[in-house]
Parts: sequence; C-alpha cells; structure tokens
Amino acid sequence: MAAAKPENLSLENYPIPEPGPNEVLLKMHSVGICGSDVHYWQHGRIGDFIVKKPMVLGHEASGTVVKVGSLVKHLQQGDRVAIEPGAPREIDEFCKIGRYNLSPTIFFCATPPDDGNLCRFYKHDANFCYKLPDNVTFEEGALIEPLSVGIHTCRRAGVTLGNKVFVCGAGPIGLVNLLVAKAMGAAQVVVTDLSASRLAKAKEAGADFVLQITNESPQEIASKVEGLLGGKPEVTIECTGAEAAIQAGIYATCPGGTLMLVGLGSEMVNVPLVHAAIREVDIKGVFRYCNTWPMAISMLASKSVNVKSLVTHRFPLEKALEAFETSKKGLGLKVMIKCDPNDQNP
Amino acid sequence: MAAAKPENLSLENYPIPEPGPNEVLLKMHSVGICGSDVHYWQHGRIGDFIVKKPMVLGHEASGTVVKVGSLVKHLQQGDRVAIEPGAPREIDEFCKIGRYNLSPTIFFCATPPDDGNLCRFYKHDANFCYKLPDNVTFEEGALIEPLSVGIHTCRRAGVTLGNKVFVCGAGPIGLVNLLVAKAMGAAQVVVTDLSASRLAKAKEAGADFVLQITNESPQEIASKVEGLLGGKPEVTIECTGAEAAIQAGIYATCPGGTLMLVGLGSEMVNVPLVHAAIREVDIKGVFRYCNTWPMAISMLASKSVNVKSLVTHRFPLEKALEAFETSKKGLGLKVMIKCDPNDQNP
Amino acid sequence: MAAAKPENLSLENYPIPEPGPNEVLLKMHSVGICGSDVHYWQHGRIGDFIVKKPMVLGHEASGTVVKVGSLVKHLQQGDRVAIEPGAPREIDEFCKIGRYNLSPTIFFCATPPDDGNLCRFYKHDANFCYKLPDNVTFEEGALIEPLSVGIHTCRRAGVTLGNKVFVCGAGPIGLVNLLVAKAMGAAQVVVTDLSASRLAKAKEAGADFVLQITNESPQEIASKVEGLLGGKPEVTIECTGAEAAIQAGIYATCPGGTLMLVGLGSEMVNVPLVHAAIREVDIKGVFRYCNTWPMAISMLASKSVNVKSLVTHRFPLEKALEAFETSKKGLGLKVMIKCDPNDQNP
Amino acid sequence: MAAAKPENLSLENYPIPEPGPNEVLLKMHSVGICGSDVHYWQHGRIGDFIVKKPMVLGHEASGTVVKVGSLVKHLQQGDRVAIEPGAPREIDEFCKIGRYNLSPTIFFCATPPDDGNLCRFYKHDANFCYKLPDNVTFEEGALIEPLSVGIHTCRRAGVTLGNKVFVCGAGPIGLVNLLVAKAMGAAQVVVTDLSASRLAKAKEAGADFVLQITNESPQEIASKVEGLLGGKPEVTIECTGAEAAIQAGIYATCPGGTLMLVGLGSEMVNVPLVHAAIREVDIKGVFRYCNTWPMAISMLASKSVNVKSLVTHRFPLEKALEAFETSKKGLGLKVMIKCDPNDQNP
Repeated sequence: MAAAKPENLSLENYPIPEPGPNEVLLKMHSVGICGSDVHYWQHGRIGDFIVKKPMVLGHEASGTVVKVGSLVKHLQQGDRVAIEPGAPREIDEFCKIGRYNLSPTIFFCATPPDDGNLCRFYKHDANFCYKLPDNVTFEEGALIEPLSVGIHTCRRAGVTLGNKVFVCGAGPIGLVNLLVAKAMGAAQVVVTDLSASRLAKAKEAGADFVLQITNESPQEIASKVEGLLGGKPEVTIECTGAEAAIQAGIYATCPGGTLMLVGLGSEMVNVPLVHAAIREVDIKGVFRYCNTWPMAISMLASKSVNVKSLVTHRFPLEKALEAFETSKKGLGLKVMIKCDPNDQNP
Repeated sequence: MAAAKPENLSLENYPIPEPGPNEVLLKMHSVGICGSDVHYWQHGRIGDFIVKKPMVLGHEASGTVVKVGSLVKHLQQGDRVAIEPGAPREIDEFCKIGRYNLSPTIFFCATPPDDGNLCRFYKHDANFCYKLPDNVTFEEGALIEPLSVGIHTCRRAGVTLGNKVFVCGAGPIGLVNLLVAKAMGAAQVVVTDLSASRLAKAKEAGADFVLQITNESPQEIASKVEGLLGGKPEVTIECTGAEAAIQAGIYATCPGGTLMLVGLGSEMVNVPLVHAAIREVDIKGVFRYCNTWPMAISMLASKSVNVKSLVTHRFPLEKALEAFETSKKGLGLKVMIKCDPNDQNP
Repeated sequence: MAAAKPENLSLENYPIPEPGPNEVLLKMHSVGICGSDVHYWQHGRIGDFIVKKPMVLGHEASGTVVKVGSLVKHLQQGDRVAIEPGAPREIDEFCKIGRYNLSPTIFFCATPPDDGNLCRFYKHDANFCYKLPDNVTFEEGALIEPLSVGIHTCRRAGVTLGNKVFVCGAGPIGLVNLLVAKAMGAAQVVVTDLSASRLAKAKEAGADFVLQITNESPQEIASKVEGLLGGKPEVTIECTGAEAAIQAGIYATCPGGTLMLVGLGSEMVNVPLVHAAIREVDIKGVFRYCNTWPMAISMLASKSVNVKSLVTHRFPLEKALEAFETSKKGLGLKVMIKCDPNDQNP
Repeated sequence: MAAAKPENLSLENYPIPEPGPNEVLLKMHSVGICGSDVHYWQHGRIGDFIVKKPMVLGHEASGTVVKVGSLVKHLQQGDRVAIEPGAPREIDEFCKIGRYNLSPTIFFCATPPDDGNLCRFYKHDANFCYKLPDNVTFEEGALIEPLSVGIHTCRRAGVTLGNKVFVCGAGPIGLVNLLVAKAMGAAQVVVTDLSASRLAKAKEAGADFVLQITNESPQEIASKVEGLLGGKPEVTIECTGAEAAIQAGIYATCPGGTLMLVGLGSEMVNVPLVHAAIREVDIKGVFRYCNTWPMAISMLASKSVNVKSLVTHRFPLEKALEAFETSKKGLGLKVMIKCDPNDQNP
C-alpha cells in the first residue's frame, strides 16, 4: 500500500524481497493504521519528513517468518513475530547509550524515504522482530506499536505505585497511556477530552474518572482535575498538542511532578513556563520509543494489560483504501488491515 | 503489652499519654504481630538492640485520633489513621535526602528503648499518622507496615513492567513482595519455599509459579527458576536470609539484574560474589522502609492490591499472650490483635 | 537591616533572640546581598511573596555559635557555621522524600513573612547550621548559598564527565553554575551574556568560551554555541529568564539533553516546545535548593572549587544602605556585608 | 604478538586484513599491556575464556586510519583514533538498553577466540574507533581503555560532588579510579595498598590520603579509613579482589553508600553481607565498561584528567617479549608497546 503525492494511495505490486544475513522475510498478517499514515497520505509530509517518491505505508505490524537470513539465530521459519518499525542502521552514540530512537540514521517503517510494511511480504532486521508466545494474537502483536508509546511515556514520566495521573486526550495514544499507567501501579487516572464518546471508551478501558472539556480555561481544567483526583497529579500526559492543554497540564501537575508532551501541535506555544520551573515540574517529550517490545510481550502474555478492545474495525488488504477512509473520519479507535488472505483472524 | 526480660510478657497499666504540639493521641484499633515482636519477647534482643527495661511491643498498627496537638493541621479528632512506626527525631542528613529510615536517632515503635503501640492509647508524631479513606479498613491500615517492606524492596529493586521476579521465601514478607511486584507490573513471579502450605498461600496471592525446595543445590534452584520463568529473573528478592538461598539468588539473577537481600541470617556468609560482580548483578539490602504510607494507602483505596487475606487469626487485646503463642508457632500468616473492646471488626 | 514598604530600608534595634531547644544563637559575620534582597527592598514583593510588615533582609550568611539549644548535639559555642536559610518547619511529604525545598510551610530567611539574618545576632534551626572547617572562611561560608543554586541545578541537570555545557547569563548565578559544572567534570563550558565585562569575569572563573550576544536570533545563538563547543551541549543552564534566551536554549541543546530554567522572567513565554519534545530535550526548573551545604563545604575544604573571587565589594553593617545601592547598580558581582564590628576579615 | 599455549609468545606474520563496509583498517601506534594479557600468556585462560588457538594479544590501543570501509562516514584516512576493544556483533537486548558490555556475543580484542590489536595493522568496527583531537596523544588514546574502567566504575557508583571515596588497591586500576573520582568532584580520596611504592604513585596522582596495609583486620582498616577521611566514605572501590579487602569495604562504607567490586579474586568469599544489607550499602560489580570513550576523549582534550604519568616503560614491538617480562614482574605501572617503527613518540 503505497502513498505517492498527497491524496494518492494505491495497491502496487513489488517483487518479494530477499532477506540479508541479519534479516528475516515476513508474511504480513495484521497492520494497524496510525494517524501518521493518514497524514502522509493526505499531506505528503510531517514536519521535515517529506514523501518524495511512492512510499509503502504501515508500521504497526505483525507477521510470520518465512525466510531467515544466514546469521540469524533467535528466529526460525514459522515463528509469529511483532515488528519494531525502528531499527538502527548503525551503533552510533545514541544507540550505544540505549536511546536508539534518537539515532538520526535509524530505519523507520513508513517514514520517508523508508518503506513501511503494509504489504504481503516484507523483510526486516531480525533483531527488531520479536517472537510472539502462542497466547498473544497477531493483532495484539501489531498493537505493541501504539502500546510502546504509552510504555515509553509512562517510563520516562516515572509513573509508579499509587500515582495520580492526568491523561489529556482520549484517542488511541491517550488510551494506551491510561492502560500502561494503570499497569505500572497508578492508583487513579483521570482522562479528559472534548468528545463524550471517546471518554466513554476511556472509562471502559479503566479510567477512574473522565472529564469532558467544553470551554473551561486551563486553570479551571487544572482545578477540576485536582478535584476529581483528590489532589494534584504527580504525572500529566498531554496527548493533544493543543496550547491550552499544555497550559492546563502545567497548572495541574503537582510540585516535583512531571508533564509529558506526547501530542504534537504548533511549532510555537505560549505557556506559563515559570509556573512549572519554580515548582520543579519537569517537562519531557517523547520521540517514538525504545526498549519496549520485550516488556510489552511479557505484559500481553501475562494478561497484565488488555489492548484487544482498541481494535474497532478490520479490512482485508484489498480494501485498504476503505480502511484509510474509515480511519481518516475518526470512526472508532484502531483500524486493522488484514494482509494474509488465508487468515483474517485477530 | 510489654516485654521485659526474655519470655516475660504481660499486660500493664500505663497512664494515657498527653500528645505534644506536633503529636496526636490515638485510640488503638488493630495491631499485627511481627516476627520481631516475637523475637524480642523470646530473646530480649535483635542484634545490637537489647530490651533493658519493659518495652511495649507492636508496630503494625492503626487507630483513631482522639486528641490533636496544638500545631497539627492535617488531622482532627475522629480521623482513622495508619501509623508509620518510624518517625525521625530530627532532620539529620539522612532525613534531608529522603532516606530517613537510615537516621540513627529515629524513633521506632517496639525497637528498644522505644515503646510500641500494642496498647489502648498511644501518642505519635502526627506527620507519621496517615488518614485512612472510608474504604480502607483498620486492618488494612495496620498491614501497611509489612506491605511497606514490599514497596521499599521492589522500588529499590527497580521492578518494572514485564519483569520476571524470583521471590525466595513464602512467609509474610515474601508474600508482600509478591503482591507489590505484581502491582508494579511484573509479568511473572515465582516463589520458592520449603513449606508446601506456605506455597499454596503464595499461589492464592497471585504467584505465577511456586517451587518447593527440598535438597537442591543453589545452582539447581537457579536453573529451575529459570526454567519456570522462561529466562533468568531481572529481580530476585531473598526473604529467608539462608546462605544457600543467597547463593541461589546470585546464580539465578540475569546479567544487569538486581538481588535484594531482605531476610536476615548469619553475620558472615560464603557467597560467589564474583559471579554477581562480573555480570553486573547489583546486591542491595533494605532497612525497614521510607516514603511508603501514602502510596500504600492509594493502592489500598484503589484496590490495586489486596492484603486482606494475609490476616489468618484475630485476638482481643486481653488474649494477647495467646496471640503471641499462635504467632510463635508459625500458624497462619498474620495474627491481628484487636485493641478496641467496642470494635473488633477488621 | 529591615525593609518595610518599598524603597524603605533602615537599621533597627531588635532584642537578641533566645534559641529554642533545637536552635542555636549566632553572632553574624558575613552576609551577601542577593538580587532578591534588592528586589524586596525596591518593590516590596516577588510574585506572591509580599512584604506586609518590616522584614529583616539577608539569607547568604555565616556566623559563630554563641548559644546552643538544649537538644543540640552536633554544635557547640564557638563553632563557625554556614547557614542554610531554608529550614522545614515540619517533616511533610516533600521533606520525607528529600525535596524539602518544595515544602509549602518551610521557613526561609528574608522571604516574607520570615525575617532574614542581616543583623548582629540571629537564631536558626541547628540542623541547618553547618560547621565550617578551619580552612574555609566566613565569606566562603556565606557564598555557599549562591553556590547551592549551582549545585542543585547541575545535579538536576545530570552534568557529568566530559559534558559540553551552555550557561546563558554571566551574573552571579551563571558563574556559580559554571564553577559547579566544571567541578562535576564538564569538559567545555560556554557562557553568553550581553555584557563584555561580565563575560570577562566568566572567562577568569574558568569558562572555556564566552560569547557576547548582540542582536542574534535564538537560532543564531544556538548555532554559534554549537560552533564553539564543537557540538550541541548536553546541558543548557538558562539564568536570565529572557524569552529569547529560553528559545535559544531549546534550539541549542542536543537530542536527549537537558535545559535547566534558573532565571525567572515573564509569567507567559512563547517557546518552540515541540522542538524540545520530539528531540527528548527535558526542561527542568529549580526552586532554591536542597541537600547542598555538606557537599559545598567538602568542595570548599578540598579546594575543588574557588568562590572567593566572586566577592567584589565589602561594607560594614553600618553602611548597609550603601552596600544595597552598590548591589542595585549592578557594580561588581557579590557585595558582602560584614556584621561583626570586631572582625571584618573575609 | 600472539599467545598460543601457556608461556608461549611469539611475533607472527599475518596478512594485512581488508576492512568490511563498516570497518576501518588501522596502522597501530601504541598498545598498553594489561594484566589480562599477561595472564593469558602465562596461564592460557581466564575463568571460562580459554586460549585454544594462537591469539593476538593487546586491547589498550590507538592507531591511524589507513583504509575506510564503504559505509563509514565519520572517519577518513589519516585520522588518529582510539580503539574501544569491545564491539557488539549484533544489537541484542543488552545493546538496546545501552549495556552492550553485557552482550554475550560481543567481539572483544584479545579475549579468546577474538584476536587483539598488538600488531602492525588491524581492522575494527568503525563505530568503535574514536577520532583523537590534535592535543591528545596516541598513548593517551591507548590509556582510555584502563581509564574507562575507572569511568564505568565511578559512574555506576554514583560518585558526585564532595564525596569521600575509599580506593582499595594502588595498581593501574586503583589509580584510574582515583583520577576519575577526583574528576567527578570527589573531595577526598584515600588509597590503600600493601606496597609503599605504589602508594607513593597514588599520592603523586592526587590521592588525598594513602594508607599502607600491614596486618590490620578488616574492621581496623575500615576504622583507619574513616579516621583519615573524617567520616565513612560514601563510595568504596575495591580493586584487589582479596576477601579481607571486600570485608573492609563493607565495614568502611557509610549507610546508604556503595561498594564497587572491581578486583576479581576467589569464586567464593566469606563476607558480612548482612552488615551491608541492613545499612543499605549497595554492592555492585563492573564488567569491562560501556559508553566511556567519548567522555574520556573530552576529558583528555580539556585536560580535566592527566593519565600520562601512568606510562612508566616503553618498548618497540620487536621487543614485545621484553615488555611482557617487565609487566609480569610488576615493575612500574603501565608498559606501552610502540607498533609504528617510524613513530615511537608518545
């Protein structure tokens, strides 16, 4: 499934690739559609990343190993795997310190110019393909990608036992942060959003409180959040990118706490930075994730977290355009594309 | 309930104390018996702590505020509270850095020469009394003390999402570590013990695997643990103090992991330290706990952890001697003494 | 030396106070003037802190113990001490975790309504008075206060061996950050300022590079800083509070690095937060400091850091008004007031 | 310079290797002799690492790039580089989290079966060759290897401003730990050893105190160390591996401090672990190092650390056997072999 110039999306035939010595060839099974996929399709760019030639979309994916490179030892034909879409091309200084997501030369599925994996057959660095236990489905495997954003965020936020957490935004990223915060021991999570239906989903997913935002000021939102939680949250996870929401996050977070910036909005924002600084509220962003797949698989295998309900729509690869239209309209939460004509199961 | 010389335990009448300006007077409700209480009763000392004059026992406790010191603002008469038994007498250098448990001048209930709170009325530093929400019982409040050992241990161990954890010993301390490790996101916990009945309790409390030890060598135990978990644990929590168990913990823990020493045994032990060192397995102990009550209350209020089943026996204060005999025999897990003649509920 | 309403400053006679059981009475020796002292004098307020009744100024101070409270054990008459101006009034939750600077009820010298120590005799919490070794002067003792801002900032920034550091602003706070960053192993520090004379002082104090700012854009400043250091700094320490400087700090800091906000400016600032977020540049503020006096004394005693040259002016207490005028004009760096008529030595 | 069976060491001719796409070919300049080189030569094994076929020795090395692999971008012909001897063969889970030293498949110079770089021409992973600035000599480049042990140790120990540090053992590893601890801001370092001449070297290198051990008990050593430092050290760095020294380290370290195990001795040791555990003295080992070369180069370039005086002997490659004999006898500190017949300068 390749996007070329904006709004142009088509199914193309590519030759089946040959895996290199450290790679595996995969028969793809399930690929989720992410907001960034839709954005590249519609606008042909995200920030400085510009689609200049047709690019295969897709980076939330799982499949089955069908061919193994000569040096690969930990995988074999028939293994069901989840794919980490970012695979460093070299062990540079970021990679050496365990923050390979910041490596400027990293390969990343469906970030131009690198092709994604919304296709029938795909080859990938074997060290970034993780074997799924029998009790974890392909779709759960594909959902590790958005779940990883939650893991990376909550881990950088230092969410811990008994925390009060404020999640701003009830889209897929807000929800995975809610799920992970609870799994890390957060006692109470409040989720805010403009949409009542999204908040209903958050409630189902385990939010202790939800708060529908209408026309409150940032200070008023902070005050309501504090009221619901019975105190200011130690951690605020901002998933909208809206200026007012970032402001609310600063006002809401307790002294010594952390505000995570996950949503991306305007280049410049007007914020009460000094209000964060003198209360030692740390402000941290996330760029994708690193070191999340193994722990995500452990969590899924032990049933510590339930992501299955995030999937609201499924389409076979042949109907990918329809899938993208559905995702673009914001219907449901996660649209899953089924790439294996012989197995459309979760 | 005071212990004087070894094996001497009696109910004594003391005058009701007057709280100082930063203190509160409490009507005691529930007090759990700890192994150290039994030890002081039987042996009159633990290491360098020696009972030289009659000492009131008890440090796992909760009660109701009946009188408030003149400077106390956060508590009022009628508040139900859990008591943190260690309250620093001064803000020394350990206290300043947030490790007040290491303060050499700390007051600590039922560590000689400081009296405990197994009595009808007791006064305590108000900053170390924590208000219980309505949905947390007095007994849960008293159980925060052993639970705190689990919190402090798992936090210092860095237990996190998806971890494999090996808990050595299925007594009360092993069980609270199991509970906390799961609450912090551990995916799989294996608990070992010599006793099948203790292991059954661990299984009930949520252990993914239990392993009854008979005459295996430390290396064999490590190997079985690895087999059950499907890999070496990132964290091992040793709660027995036995030399062979510490050895097993070193062999079992994965490179880069952590071995926590919670159980206390012989002064000198013979251990393969180099095997830990060259694999960067860190070895850390715990001394009591610090900064655990607020998060424990949050966890109990949000039902993130269930400690109720730890209580297996209850006795009114009048039958305290019988309670101590029960605890000494190792029957059940936690023996709770009920100090309020008008309310013997949990 | 007390300030009442704005621009009103006078020497007043107060009775010599009596130390409480945990306090010591000090004969004051050297007190530095801080920008905040001048601000309270001129404007009568800083943010929400408002001078409502005459307040003694001064919080960078040292003196000699002349009387010891009944419970004090670590100090005795004649001890020369440095005074940490912030002393918690209670062991609240911030104090318990080692971040007592965030305690809302903390006593703090010369923050209304608490009196400072620019006077002849002053009593203070003995646990926040630190004995000076013989080879550390009273003025060095007084300078631990500004030095502490540098320690707290560099420690929260995680400055470590070989770091490139960008310090924005060459006033006293910029300089102490420079000194501490070098002492923590920073390899290269660049300091920027508008003033050539301040930069000359920074160069003397050990700056590897200085850069005089004229009318460069924030991006241009970032680019020049990178050029001088041979790479983007891991740590940027912003000591001016100016919007453009914060912007430059965001652009300058390397991916995965930290921007410290030390200078305080406008309530709202317009900043490229997303540029920090997606490169995982953490933004952290500081509120005063905690846990710095013991390490500062160690550093001064071992000559690991040299603060003596920060003092550019000295006045006897009788000429305090002149001292404040000097400080207000921004002449020199640190103006020191000598409170002991019999000993005006450093 | 290749070692085959024990005590067999000879100069052999090998063909000049061809660098792979991610490698560089180096003309070797300076290679230090390490205790492990001598050990492989004499005993043919260290623990489980056994020399089964002739192995080139040497892993403390620097040289000049003479040929660049096709994919290498950051180096070019003529660059002077320091070589990190451990280069991961794959991005496995240890590598991903930034602890690549623990990777079981890592390539490591002169650890069997991997050849070292004590030779004329040598090829290496380009990402593990670091360009030396003009003001850093080849020998300083080679000394980054032992220096890295000090960096890795002090970093894992958390050495920070104003610390008291106890270094046990004044050989090369003790000395680099001394140097790094001071560079990280340690205020006072005491070094102990059996040998007065080694201690003299430690004193020259900046030790604040030295203590010659004769027949003191571990407790006596701890007591003397405390006396010299004016308090128990926050960090103890044990570089001998001797049981008594580990015991002394446990007794000496202050509550809440850290004992680093760097020296390797007997498989089993008898130690007072409980004494460490109940005072929360953490015990940590090191395996080689990771992420040290860039910071070491920054430190050397900025003259924050001086390693030059560690080199006490130099031999041309032709006299390597003589060099090894010198090292074996324990004469001097570091023996350097000069591999470039046209440039025998430092």
